[in-house]
Amino acid sequence: MYDRSEHVWDAVLQIRSHAPLVHNITNYVVMNTTANALLAIGASPVMAHAEQEVEDMVNIASALVINIGTLNEEWTKSMFMAARKAKQKGIPVILDPVGAGATPYRTRTARQLLDAVSPSIIRANASETMALVTEGKLTKGVDSTAASDHALDAARILSDQFGSVVCVSGEKDYIIAGKRMIVVGNGHSMMTRVTGLGCTASALCGAFAAVGSDLADSTAYAMAVMGIAGEIAAARAAGPGSMQMQFLDALYGLSFEDIDQHLKLTTVSP
Amino acid sequence: MYDRSEHVWDAVLQIRSHAPLVHNITNYVVMNTTANALLAIGASPVMAHAEQEVEDMVNIASALVINIGTLNEEWTKSMFMAARKAKQKGIPVILDPVGAGATPYRTRTARQLLDAVSPSIIRANASETMALVTEGKLTKGVDSTAASDHALDAARILSDQFGSVVCVSGEKDYIIAGKRMIVVGNGHSMMTRVTGLGCTASALCGAFAAVGSDLADSTAYAMAVMGIAGEIAAARAAGPGSMQMQFLDALYGLSFEDIDQHLKLTTVSP
Amino acid sequence: MYDRSEHVWDAVLQIRSHAPLVHNITNYVVMNTTANALLAIGASPVMAHAEQEVEDMVNIASALVINIGTLNEEWTKSMFMAARKAKQKGIPVILDPVGAGATPYRTRTARQLLDAVSPSIIRANASETMALVTEGKLTKGVDSTAASDHALDAARILSDQFGSVVCVSGEKDYIIAGKRMIVVGNGHSMMTRVTGLGCTASALCGAFAAVGSDLADSTAYAMAVMGIAGEIAAARAAGPGSMQMQFLDALYGLSFEDIDQHLKLTTVSP
Repeated sequence: MYDRSEHVWDAVLQIRSHAPLVHNITNYVVMNTTANALLAIGASPVMAHAEQEVEDMVNIASALVINIGTLNEEWTKSMFMAARKAKQKGIPVILDPVGAGATPYRTRTARQLLDAVSPSIIRANASETMALVTEGKLTKGVDSTAASDHALDAARILSDQFGSVVCVSGEKDYIIAGKRMIVVGNGHSMMTRVTGLGCTASALCGAFAAVGSDLADSTAYAMAVMGIAGEIAAARAAGPGSMQMQFLDALYGLSFEDIDQHLKLTTVSP
Repeated sequence: MYDRSEHVWDAVLQIRSHAPLVHNITNYVVMNTTANALLAIGASPVMAHAEQEVEDMVNIASALVINIGTLNEEWTKSMFMAARKAKQKGIPVILDPVGAGATPYRTRTARQLLDAVSPSIIRANASETMALVTEGKLTKGVDSTAASDHALDAARILSDQFGSVVCVSGEKDYIIAGKRMIVVGNGHSMMTRVTGLGCTASALCGAFAAVGSDLADSTAYAMAVMGIAGEIAAARAAGPGSMQMQFLDALYGLSFEDIDQHLKLTTVSP
Repeated sequence: MYDRSEHVWDAVLQIRSHAPLVHNITNYVVMNTTANALLAIGASPVMAHAEQEVEDMVNIASALVINIGTLNEEWTKSMFMAARKAKQKGIPVILDPVGAGATPYRTRTARQLLDAVSPSIIRANASETMALVTEGKLTKGVDSTAASDHALDAARILSDQFGSVVCVSGEKDYIIAGKRMIVVGNGHSMMTRVTGLGCTASALCGAFAAVGSDLADSTAYAMAVMGIAGEIAAARAAGPGSMQMQFLDALYGLSFEDIDQHLKLTTVSP
């Protein structure tokens, strides 16, 4: 029987052999580290944001990752152009709505991106996920439900509304696709002390979606690989500085045994 | 008796328990490394520069750090907006006038920021500090005073004129607040071989000021913690690459013993 | 007899003693890492792109490095301004046409920069080099020549047309200056898994050209030092994360013995 670990490993091998070009329109803070993570897993990163070229770059890319971490008007305009082109071309579009909920501008822009392009995958933390849902739809029942359930409700609403796979990341990662749910239990608390590992997760979702056939599985495999590399790195790290270095080394050196020993991935039947 | 080391340690504990949100409008070169340093010490970094959101971001932040290292008109405009909002809200504003004196544009912009917002803390090296002072005020006595005294004169002028704490950093860091002066002797020469550690110091001033009650003390504690982490890191580093990694690990793992064994902090009576 | 290793070592010593200011107008992905590499080898990096200051910054710099990796209209305008000023002042201009050939915008911009400023040094990979040459000039004989020969033909055309030293980097680096050719065989395959080491090579070309008297030699020495540091780093690295760290340490700690033991530099007579 072909088990889960073998599927994850197969996806890694696909990335390593095809080196899919992942086009990132992302934030300044993480450009270097996400490019390095994509290279470490075996993909080919490119960063390009000028309106004069984003459509041409999408045209040669296998996935588009949009991240609003340091957005402004110029970059947002290019995100819309690139995302529309990617949908038209049929390559996966991953949206990371960094900081949605923190300022009205971020929330508004993230929602406009949702409306305009119905991303293939949305990867966000719990509060960002909730911020993406129009108030009226979610606030019913605030008193009776816990915050984490709340984020899952929001994820289901977003998945239904936009046909997107929604990954709510946190101590556990919940991947919602319509009535399907996959739970990934990998990861390490030290990962929260390294800036941009959430953004890196979104970039890896792009790499896995580029070579995969099922968006929910690809998202789950990307999150599992992130978490496993994080666990391996944390075991070798003395703090967040060495963590960042060990994480790239772990991604690069990832073996079937690493996956098989660490994988915590569960499909929850609807 | 509550000694200096205990005060510094208390400030670190305050940051770790409150995780103050430090809003940075900073340069491209150091965004990743300053975000990581803020996370390592226990603060919460956010980078946001769009005019559509800087005021909203300041509104949820506990300190604002402005750094002109890769300034242009768009970013400068946002710096003014954010700084005015921060003053109005009453949170500390830290200015790092990177490269003031190197080009007229930097010098002019830095001075305009001083005039417009009277920063809580100015952290700069000697030549930048001197460049901030209008020529006529400082050039008297050029022949008779040494360069380092000159920077301290400039710092006193700036402190008087803007009511700011001024930190002139270098082999020793001089923190000037009106007639008060604190001298921090921590640090290591290898720190000058890692890009952006000055900018990181300014970001840490933001974190310490966010949890402290006295701006001069907070600045001194931030500079001492920078220097101590640098000394610990240098002892474990083979060069600037490992230095950068060890520095983050040292910040993250900083203990009372580290501070107590290394602290070189002296108050100079007026 | 003064041998090749001694010449390379002399150039390193010149950089360490003069700490030339290298002005970079480069891409967001590599700003931090190229600044760190310049500091590690002993140069002084500055990043500045605002049209209000690029000419003033060039005025105090010893070399200008232009890299179009994340170009847009604003940055491109500043690249032209800075490059014209640098030519006028007589300091070396290094062009890294990142991604030329990937989108028409990049190809067009790179060619316009060539036409406007005739860079002192062009450092590019094989496909970028070929993309810089106007189609009609190179496509003759496509069937009869291999791709690598093709890039060298393109390099010769560019060198003749613009009077530039052209470095086609890859497993071997070919430095073409008119009829001269120098081949550098240093480097390690792990270097391709760290983002921006090509951009770092261009920045080091700036540092070596700033202190050297012959542009082709300076380019060759920069590429050799990159490759040697890469070989030393790879021997100590477990993956691309530790590679990046070890590379900076190796650049910083580079000794005559390192150069003498590793150098693979051959001049090919015309």
